[in-house]
Amino acid sequence: MADTSSLEARVGELEERLRALEDRDAIAQLVASYGPAVDSGDADAAAELWSDDGVFDVVPYFELVGRDGIAGMVNDDGHQSLIHNGCGHVLTAPKVVVDGNEARGWNYAFNIRWDGAADRFWIARLSANEWEFRRDRGGWHVVRRTNVNLDGDERPRALFRNSTEPLGGVS
Amino acid sequence: MADTSSLEARVGELEERLRALEDRDAIAQLVASYGPAVDSGDADAAAELWSDDGVFDVVPYFELVGRDGIAGMVNDDGHQSLIHNGCGHVLTAPKVVVDGNEARGWNYAFNIRWDGAADRFWIARLSANEWEFRRDRGGWHVVRRTNVNLDGDERPRALFRNSTEPLGGVS
Amino acid sequence: MADTSSLEARVGELEERLRALEDRDAIAQLVASYGPAVDSGDADAAAELWSDDGVFDVVPYFELVGRDGIAGMVNDDGHQSLIHNGCGHVLTAPKVVVDGNEARGWNYAFNIRWDGAADRFWIARLSANEWEFRRDRGGWHVVRRTNVNLDGDERPRALFRNSTEPLGGVS
Repeated sequence: MADTSSLEARVGELEERLRALEDRDAIAQLVASYGPAVDSGDADAAAELWSDDGVFDVVPYFELVGRDGIAGMVNDDGHQSLIHNGCGHVLTAPKVVVDGNEARGWNYAFNIRWDGAADRFWIARLSANEWEFRRDRGGWHVVRRTNVNLDGDERPRALFRNSTEPLGGVS
Repeated sequence: MADTSSLEARVGELEERLRALEDRDAIAQLVASYGPAVDSGDADAAAELWSDDGVFDVVPYFELVGRDGIAGMVNDDGHQSLIHNGCGHVLTAPKVVVDGNEARGWNYAFNIRWDGAADRFWIARLSANEWEFRRDRGGWHVVRRTNVNLDGDERPRALFRNSTEPLGGVS
Repeated sequence: MADTSSLEARVGELEERLRALEDRDAIAQLVASYGPAVDSGDADAAAELWSDDGVFDVVPYFELVGRDGIAGMVNDDGHQSLIHNGCGHVLTAPKVVVDGNEARGWNYAFNIRWDGAADRFWIARLSANEWEFRRDRGGWHVVRRTNVNLDGDERPRALFRNSTEPLGGVS
């Protein structure tokens, strides 16, 4: 029969490993929440994904700061026109590396637009994305999201290169 | 040294938290199974993802009911023609909220078609999807899937708005 | 109060179930790492995803063998030209079935290319993918990845049909 102290060590290790998986899952859910929030035009839901001082950097077009900045983008005439013409902000499942209360992630973001006359959609943009996340009392939030179109420029390659060193989250 | 009853409480909490992650993973796998099933033309595999009385509502075109309904769609001439011309039913990783033996999810579904003459694919449809899942003795199954094209209509926005209240699954 | 041996059994079961989830997560991360590695042109990072003797079979074009083969593809003029013209290798979250130290997975891979004149991207290829993974001392690696364009041919359907028997990973 196992003694209590060896069992306690095993339980402690389980708690740590489970927490790591929960963190990765919460962050993946945060990323999966972005598209439905902005494509339904829900400015508050989109804003709540970011931290109070969070940044959304859409290189080289504009940089949004804070939840008001995010909400403003969703309520803006440009975005409202997009969703009323038909569009999809489709994000892929991210690669994520967690380090305590901070984390980083990388994925792709499609900006897709409906063309009723052609009876199909066009991929207006396909962007490399880098995310910085932070855990606070309300859970995980986005501290910074950087989005750069994959148009052959060096910037999206540099951004994705950050994901490959180290491969800490994979093994 | 820890006493047995405090250890037991920690083990009980671990069991509950692990079950929550297993549920979310099983549901994500269910969703990831749809595309390969229909694009290989495997009617039974597609049908088994749904519950006996499950519904697939492809707004506003048709509503399939039960496993026979799902299997019938896959075996139908229209679908067989699609997969023999080249197509992909590509679903993204869902946002999922679990509540006991029930769950809901939201994601995007691409309907993509090969055009050999143009040597490329077209995005025929990009749809907002809402899923209802139920756990029974055989595991998690789809009780209802609603699919609406993101063509600017209010319906896909209303469907995605369901995903943002509350943000229960994120924090 | 629980006795120690029944607690130990519960802890043992937790360890096994947690390991199963960790395996599935590590494999999903491996797959999510591919796109950012090749689209940033990082040949070593892409090569490290495979095992020493791993294979990447791009049916019917070419078959790469070993890490040198993978790295060679990334450093090749053809791939370098692609990423400098703008492209995205976008992979979806896989369906995964784990069996001890081996696993298999199925997902979709987009090959997307930027067209500056048209101000949009084209989907050059959308492929059915089957993956074989193996766990070794360094963690999970790709032993074989098979990629076939979904152009209506029987081969991608046959490949995806492997994913539906059995549905071991879903329930």
